[in-house]
Amino acid sequence: MAWSARFSEPVSDLVKRYTASVDFDKRMARFDIQGSLAHASMLAAVGVITEQDKADIERGMSQILDEIAQGQFQWLLDLEDVHLNIEKRLVELIGDAGKRLHTGRSRNDQVATDIRLWLRNEIDIAQDLLAQMQRKLAELALAQADTILPGFTHLQVAQPVTFGHHLLAYAEMFQRDAERLQDCRKRVNRLPLGAAALAGTSYPIDREMVAGLLGFDDVCRNSLDAVSDRDFAIEFCAAAALIMTHISRFSEELVLWMSPRVGFIDLADRFCTGSSIMPQKKNPDVPELARGKTGRVNGNLIALLTLMKGQPLAYNKDNQEDKEGLFDSADTIRDTLTIFVDLISGIKVKPDAMRAAALQGFATATDLADYLVKKGLPFRDAHETVALAVRDCEQLGCDLADLSLEQLQKFDSRIESDIFEVLTLEGSVASRKHIGGTAPERVRIEAQRILDRIPG
Amino acid sequence: MAWSARFSEPVSDLVKRYTASVDFDKRMARFDIQGSLAHASMLAAVGVITEQDKADIERGMSQILDEIAQGQFQWLLDLEDVHLNIEKRLVELIGDAGKRLHTGRSRNDQVATDIRLWLRNEIDIAQDLLAQMQRKLAELALAQADTILPGFTHLQVAQPVTFGHHLLAYAEMFQRDAERLQDCRKRVNRLPLGAAALAGTSYPIDREMVAGLLGFDDVCRNSLDAVSDRDFAIEFCAAAALIMTHISRFSEELVLWMSPRVGFIDLADRFCTGSSIMPQKKNPDVPELARGKTGRVNGNLIALLTLMKGQPLAYNKDNQEDKEGLFDSADTIRDTLTIFVDLISGIKVKPDAMRAAALQGFATATDLADYLVKKGLPFRDAHETVALAVRDCEQLGCDLADLSLEQLQKFDSRIESDIFEVLTLEGSVASRKHIGGTAPERVRIEAQRILDRIPG
Amino acid sequence: MAWSARFSEPVSDLVKRYTASVDFDKRMARFDIQGSLAHASMLAAVGVITEQDKADIERGMSQILDEIAQGQFQWLLDLEDVHLNIEKRLVELIGDAGKRLHTGRSRNDQVATDIRLWLRNEIDIAQDLLAQMQRKLAELALAQADTILPGFTHLQVAQPVTFGHHLLAYAEMFQRDAERLQDCRKRVNRLPLGAAALAGTSYPIDREMVAGLLGFDDVCRNSLDAVSDRDFAIEFCAAAALIMTHISRFSEELVLWMSPRVGFIDLADRFCTGSSIMPQKKNPDVPELARGKTGRVNGNLIALLTLMKGQPLAYNKDNQEDKEGLFDSADTIRDTLTIFVDLISGIKVKPDAMRAAALQGFATATDLADYLVKKGLPFRDAHETVALAVRDCEQLGCDLADLSLEQLQKFDSRIESDIFEVLTLEGSVASRKHIGGTAPERVRIEAQRILDRIPG
Amino acid sequence: MAWSARFSEPVSDLVKRYTASVDFDKRMARFDIQGSLAHASMLAAVGVITEQDKADIERGMSQILDEIAQGQFQWLLDLEDVHLNIEKRLVELIGDAGKRLHTGRSRNDQVATDIRLWLRNEIDIAQDLLAQMQRKLAELALAQADTILPGFTHLQVAQPVTFGHHLLAYAEMFQRDAERLQDCRKRVNRLPLGAAALAGTSYPIDREMVAGLLGFDDVCRNSLDAVSDRDFAIEFCAAAALIMTHISRFSEELVLWMSPRVGFIDLADRFCTGSSIMPQKKNPDVPELARGKTGRVNGNLIALLTLMKGQPLAYNKDNQEDKEGLFDSADTIRDTLTIFVDLISGIKVKPDAMRAAALQGFATATDLADYLVKKGLPFRDAHETVALAVRDCEQLGCDLADLSLEQLQKFDSRIESDIFEVLTLEGSVASRKHIGGTAPERVRIEAQRILDRIPG
Repeated sequence: MAWSARFSEPVSDLVKRYTASVDFDKRMARFDIQGSLAHASMLAAVGVITEQDKADIERGMSQILDEIAQGQFQWLLDLEDVHLNIEKRLVELIGDAGKRLHTGRSRNDQVATDIRLWLRNEIDIAQDLLAQMQRKLAELALAQADTILPGFTHLQVAQPVTFGHHLLAYAEMFQRDAERLQDCRKRVNRLPLGAAALAGTSYPIDREMVAGLLGFDDVCRNSLDAVSDRDFAIEFCAAAALIMTHISRFSEELVLWMSPRVGFIDLADRFCTGSSIMPQKKNPDVPELARGKTGRVNGNLIALLTLMKGQPLAYNKDNQEDKEGLFDSADTIRDTLTIFVDLISGIKVKPDAMRAAALQGFATATDLADYLVKKGLPFRDAHETVALAVRDCEQLGCDLADLSLEQLQKFDSRIESDIFEVLTLEGSVASRKHIGGTAPERVRIEAQRILDRIPG
Repeated sequence: MAWSARFSEPVSDLVKRYTASVDFDKRMARFDIQGSLAHASMLAAVGVITEQDKADIERGMSQILDEIAQGQFQWLLDLEDVHLNIEKRLVELIGDAGKRLHTGRSRNDQVATDIRLWLRNEIDIAQDLLAQMQRKLAELALAQADTILPGFTHLQVAQPVTFGHHLLAYAEMFQRDAERLQDCRKRVNRLPLGAAALAGTSYPIDREMVAGLLGFDDVCRNSLDAVSDRDFAIEFCAAAALIMTHISRFSEELVLWMSPRVGFIDLADRFCTGSSIMPQKKNPDVPELARGKTGRVNGNLIALLTLMKGQPLAYNKDNQEDKEGLFDSADTIRDTLTIFVDLISGIKVKPDAMRAAALQGFATATDLADYLVKKGLPFRDAHETVALAVRDCEQLGCDLADLSLEQLQKFDSRIESDIFEVLTLEGSVASRKHIGGTAPERVRIEAQRILDRIPG
Repeated sequence: MAWSARFSEPVSDLVKRYTASVDFDKRMARFDIQGSLAHASMLAAVGVITEQDKADIERGMSQILDEIAQGQFQWLLDLEDVHLNIEKRLVELIGDAGKRLHTGRSRNDQVATDIRLWLRNEIDIAQDLLAQMQRKLAELALAQADTILPGFTHLQVAQPVTFGHHLLAYAEMFQRDAERLQDCRKRVNRLPLGAAALAGTSYPIDREMVAGLLGFDDVCRNSLDAVSDRDFAIEFCAAAALIMTHISRFSEELVLWMSPRVGFIDLADRFCTGSSIMPQKKNPDVPELARGKTGRVNGNLIALLTLMKGQPLAYNKDNQEDKEGLFDSADTIRDTLTIFVDLISGIKVKPDAMRAAALQGFATATDLADYLVKKGLPFRDAHETVALAVRDCEQLGCDLADLSLEQLQKFDSRIESDIFEVLTLEGSVASRKHIGGTAPERVRIEAQRILDRIPG
Repeated sequence: MAWSARFSEPVSDLVKRYTASVDFDKRMARFDIQGSLAHASMLAAVGVITEQDKADIERGMSQILDEIAQGQFQWLLDLEDVHLNIEKRLVELIGDAGKRLHTGRSRNDQVATDIRLWLRNEIDIAQDLLAQMQRKLAELALAQADTILPGFTHLQVAQPVTFGHHLLAYAEMFQRDAERLQDCRKRVNRLPLGAAALAGTSYPIDREMVAGLLGFDDVCRNSLDAVSDRDFAIEFCAAAALIMTHISRFSEELVLWMSPRVGFIDLADRFCTGSSIMPQKKNPDVPELARGKTGRVNGNLIALLTLMKGQPLAYNKDNQEDKEGLFDSADTIRDTLTIFVDLISGIKVKPDAMRAAALQGFATATDLADYLVKKGLPFRDAHETVALAVRDCEQLGCDLADLSLEQLQKFDSRIESDIFEVLTLEGSVASRKHIGGTAPERVRIEAQRILDRIPG
């Protein structure tokens, strides 16, 4: 044990298992070794270890990487964590040079470095997936730029929109999610190594060299802060929670759209499962499960916020709890986004059902109101007029477009025969062509912007 | 696949992994089999299957239990979950009788039954641990009934209390935690089986017989509710969060008490670890980690609440996400309580440091105020008088008990020589002897009450 | 200021505003006075104050209650909280007897008592509302015991259920919510008064007398615990979160059912609002807002758990933060339940739309499978057979009931003409008549059970 | 009512109160008017309203602003929200021009605009306060660059650090908090107006003109997204939660440092309160309450995440719940930071107590280990040697620096007389002078960097 000389009694097996982290932190092994190699290069450069030590360390680490890759590395609970497991093996392989590697650092700054290297990699993967999501959405939006479905507010039919426009709403969300990860990455990508246990070290270390070797943008400028804060991990968990929130909204719609009463789309069979008792079922399992997984990602965020709350400086063992929640959030967005990129390709659109739904619910009432305003009515008065017309239609069991010109003119004499184009779905969507509007021509422009930005 | 006949395309490997639950739900295997055996007994009793079928099922399940116990059971991701894995193996072992087992039930009511059986067992384990915690606390309280330390409010010295009294505060908390689990158990211990997929079944099932065989207190009275709600699991997670909240408060104090400036206690070495860089350190890892684990248990609670929010009836795949958080909360309280039962025995009390701290900070000022009230001053006036005396003592750098009778009488002429007993720590604590008070004699009574209630 | 004599500098206005609680805790005034009167009675009974003091206090408090009721009471931020505001006014009104009231207690045990009295009252109100909810649901269920709609799993049509059965699922949930509140009430209804600041008091108080006067079931048995723990409030917040989770699920369904593509129900206009821009809209605002309010109730739960995490004993100022979240959760469930009791009466059922939906999606496929099992096929084989039949129907664009006997027999020769009753919606639901099943006769029994239990 | 023409029944008073938002959203009035004026300017510029209309609107709004400022504006619950209240008054004041203002917009895009304008302003205020916090911390750090206290890990003495260095750790955290708000601001500062209800509008609006008038960096590029997503508000709540997490850590230390057993600092009386029963108490109420308020800010974050989870597009009434939590988080960080800027100035440092604590606990043991490494021992061996020395010192009851050279050499013969400088606190901290280290010279550099960056 790294620290046992002073202890009169060994930790019990249960305590060992309770406090050990190797079961979950071993997944950072690659980054632990990457950090150690950069540290060794620096120690050699400033003369704390010899070039021979450095060469030995590199050789030993190379073998350890191989052993891990081939599943032959022996992870021992007794050695607590990924750091001590690797160091112990290194000493076995190369002797005293291995014992010198830990000079000028501590597990406190070492683990902080590992997490950042690992998380930076996860962010880069997520960024790529978010870009693919946007591209898939834009491709489908381009294909569906003219398809009309009802735009809902309060799940009531509000106004017709194009399906392409609807899809691009999600592309916007995922683009903001990507921006957030990019901003988070700046704060992740700073080097804590050199903070040692909490106060820095008396060795003549060159932290900027290490930062350069590891691709960090900057070094953490305060050792106490470097080893003790995990705000960058919490920020990532918050960004992940928003990604899953957006996924959950998309999933809610997919589930709804696949429900037989709505029937706007079908999902490819490979994302669905059946029922063990109801042979006719085709269940949208993937979007439902993704929606449910929003819970765990929100939970991980709260877990990390809770554990940091009220912790005095500097490192406390509480912080060991930072990892599992963080890993789980990263895994969840990675798996979910990977599947959704494919799932979007498997959306089969049913334009007839969409159109039928848009024709139900007076979706162009707003267009009638706007028409009246253009004819001179103040907006609020036009609104009241249309409300009366809708009430009559409901009693007649027809749509506004089904009224005759004569009937329409009873509500306002300024209505003329050009009204009928206004009351069509196509007329309605085509008129909303400004930036952000639902018109097919606008959807094509916006979808193309995304496709131009994100190479296929 | 249980449902595959109608599907034109297999699920992809990633989707399979994403939607499968066998990796985590296989831990309920024992309860899944227990439920199946009760179901089979009932099916035979009402004539849906034959006695021979039942005997075959029992034989097959017995072998499966053995295979699992010996680690020889083959868990296949392709078979999604614990239920299908076991059923598939059963059919391999016993043929058509295995195919008949699923008659009149569905995975929806089956999994709801499994979770309840599993959770009931976890509750019983936790109850036992909470009782042991109280017993250990009461034993230590009895031994420390006369030890005086400062009672803090706002981490400022307020009034002297006995260490036994302080420990019994936690015994009260854990007793309420036990009550909560007991109340939760009533709602866990109801049988969902018979709800089938969501609507019940057309077979002449006898749900009360199954409930009796499985030790359930009652049957769920609505099939849609039975398969879709998980409020009992959320209630458990909330109770677990309170257990960890209490543990986190106790841990905060243990960490503080072990800090060298305070030094009220020492923890046995087996609950502490050292430092890889600071050889002199003895870190209270266990209480710190337990405090940190409050985060994950709060997070699991939020995860489950989030996933249930806004779910339409009846079962949706979101619900598969109910298990990992629930398992994790149960494991966390089980491991933590198990260790803390032992940790309490390992607390080494340092009464001198406690006493020295109690003498610092005018801990008996309230006693002086009470003394003055008994001499006729209204409480609020007595308070002001004592405040002035404290201010003078601060300037003099002494305690209230260090003032002479003459000096004390300057603040109020009614003060007499009997004041000095009032101003001692022993006098202060001994006077608080009512129910709930800190007096040694009261601590003994309360500790004994707990020891009488909980057999050793 | 109650404690100012020793301070050299007044608190700044911002600090005063930041730390004062009177703005929100004044709503407990009635309970603060109730507690004070019981305390005064006890002090007089044990001889700490005179009968005259007690009479003066009662007279003064009576006037204060009047002043508050008539909105004439002057609440001052300078007096921090409800307790000091009332005490100050009492001293103005009755002089020294008012100053003697605080003998043997502290604001720490006083506020803990106030919260418990207040919360007990809120629980009793919520209990009444939950009972009304169940009654309204049962009344509607009785009226709709024969109405058939599709039972959904995964928002896919699964099996036909009766609307009465569906409504009773919610009655079950609200009944468990009521049980939970009842269990919580036991832990709320214990007297902390007598704990004083943290250690108890040297006066010869009679806590059991006070408990009796205030209707408490028991006294808190440890003073440190009594003033510092708020687990009872967190337990209430958790129970409130489950109530809102159930409300959110019901709301999700109401919103969905009112959506034009589904159209199963209409809500009375008084629970809906329109749109400022879309005159045709009728938005189910109340269920949507209720669903949204799940967020704040979950948030309050986390807020309270977070603030208790890691707090050392005994009282810390952090605890002042316990009230606003607790108040908000209690208000939210009170308002929401009050409106929903009325809203249920305003549900207009559209049985034709429900029936049409149930006929879409092979809802009786399970019944066909069960039929085959009863004819001797093992369940899993029957399932496969039906899956093939469904696949054919999908290609033919018809329901199972639309197939001829000859067509059906191609799937299994054991099918006879009695199959057609099995494939009707009515036949399907009627056959599920066991406890918990969806059959109209079972719905009537269960609804009546509720109506018998809860007087109208 | 804006939408009432089609409704047969008024909403009940309770529903009105339940669904109205004017009680809390009226605080956005200033921003609502600012948005309306920009909208009116644009409508006039594109010819939808006349210049006269625009002038009337400006005149009316000017008067309304005055009425609000002077507390004379009549807020009516019947008018639901801030938007309708202001519009109604505008129509009263200026007639038909007021009715034309709402042309081409909806309350959906209007409220989204108001929130963004309001939040942008709050971010700017918070940024200023975070800068002041850093400046105050840097000023105190500069003054305390040489003051030595124990650096703790696990609340055990680890190594000596300078108090200036410790304070700068918090300056780093608040700097990252500021960066996060700056990043969030980019996503807040985009214009949703023009999205109308959900689909855009058929009027020839000029959204970029409106964005320019309101100081937005960009326009939202999808109308459905613009009215329905609140991720920017959640992002702000997450950033606020991290600010409060950092404040809670600082507060925990302040409370601990003020506890008599530690006694490292005193806080100015204006941030403390006394006790109603313990006249000697001086309680650090402000940091305790701030620590407690972490709970509500975490709760608000969860509230908003929960309410967005699974919402279908576009606007649903659930979203009305976005405001109170957001307002509360913004208010909490504003008030807390404002007080803490002042509180830092009121920290009275007690260097003697800090030094005494640093001399307790073998704080320079690491320095001895490093000394041995520099003499040629591998790090892990040096660590074991020092551990043995510490164990001896503990038995002797002395510090490492109290051992004679002879005694020290028994542990390793390479130890020479230069060791004694290494074992002093000053020697220890001075040697950690690299970037991020605790050396006084490094603290001065870092503090000055902050002071140079942030003008006083």
